[in-house]
Amino acid sequence: MNTTLKIIGYLRSDIKTREEAPKQGNEGGIEAIVEIQEEYEDAMDGMSVGSEVVLLSWLHAADRECQRVHPRGDETRPKRGVFTTRSPDRPNPIGLHPVTITEIDGFKIKVRPMEAIDGTPLIDIKNVQRHK
Amino acid sequence: MNTTLKIIGYLRSDIKTREEAPKQGNEGGIEAIVEIQEEYEDAMDGMSVGSEVVLLSWLHAADRECQRVHPRGDETRPKRGVFTTRSPDRPNPIGLHPVTITEIDGFKIKVRPMEAIDGTPLIDIKNVQRHK
Repeated sequence: MNTTLKIIGYLRSDIKTREEAPKQGNEGGIEAIVEIQEEYEDAMDGMSVGSEVVLLSWLHAADRECQRVHPRGDETRPKRGVFTTRSPDRPNPIGLHPVTITEIDGFKIKVRPMEAIDGTPLIDIKNVQRHK
Repeated sequence: MNTTLKIIGYLRSDIKTREEAPKQGNEGGIEAIVEIQEEYEDAMDGMSVGSEVVLLSWLHAADRECQRVHPRGDETRPKRGVFTTRSPDRPNPIGLHPVTITEIDGFKIKVRPMEAIDGTPLIDIKNVQRHK
């Protein structure tokens, strides 16, 4: 079984370091550009402005050996297992980012609100389920 | 950059084939067991019954070369890019499963509703964000 991820694109953002990144998109996330690799043109077919999607990212600056953290980095709170948190430090540092597409220009897709840092690799885009 | 996923556990489920699997957990998903590998004991610290979590799985039966599909497998609907769907067939076949933990017995965690097939590898467990 091959479990090596393919990088489908990269994030272009004004957030340059982990220190200045909000913890979640809805806590001060900004508009950012997702640049898709040209080989995934077919997978983008039908994407539209205004759509709500979930971006999956690979949080490349994370510590994959870390199993316990202070929740939200708050050292007054006791450490607990990363599976009970949203910490980027975890065995597989995959970020989930619910965003809205605000513009599409070829392989460049503008989204918001986005909290990941500039250069973060992207690994998937999923449609958001709506239950009507 | 190492983008090879670590398998943190496996799903044990009565759903044995992709054909009998519901498309989403809330469309007939069942109670199933997540068996965590013992090396991730620390990462489980603090998990509790009743918690809502998102499981991330690796949909190992998926076609990673596929970029366009009929939405929901419905051949009367025109094909479109997998990034506009929830199809398991996609460059990185990661499944997102919002579930509730119903029982914890050592490394065996019972969850529901779960639609993935028996033997599906698990790659992450995340806390669900609540905005109060």
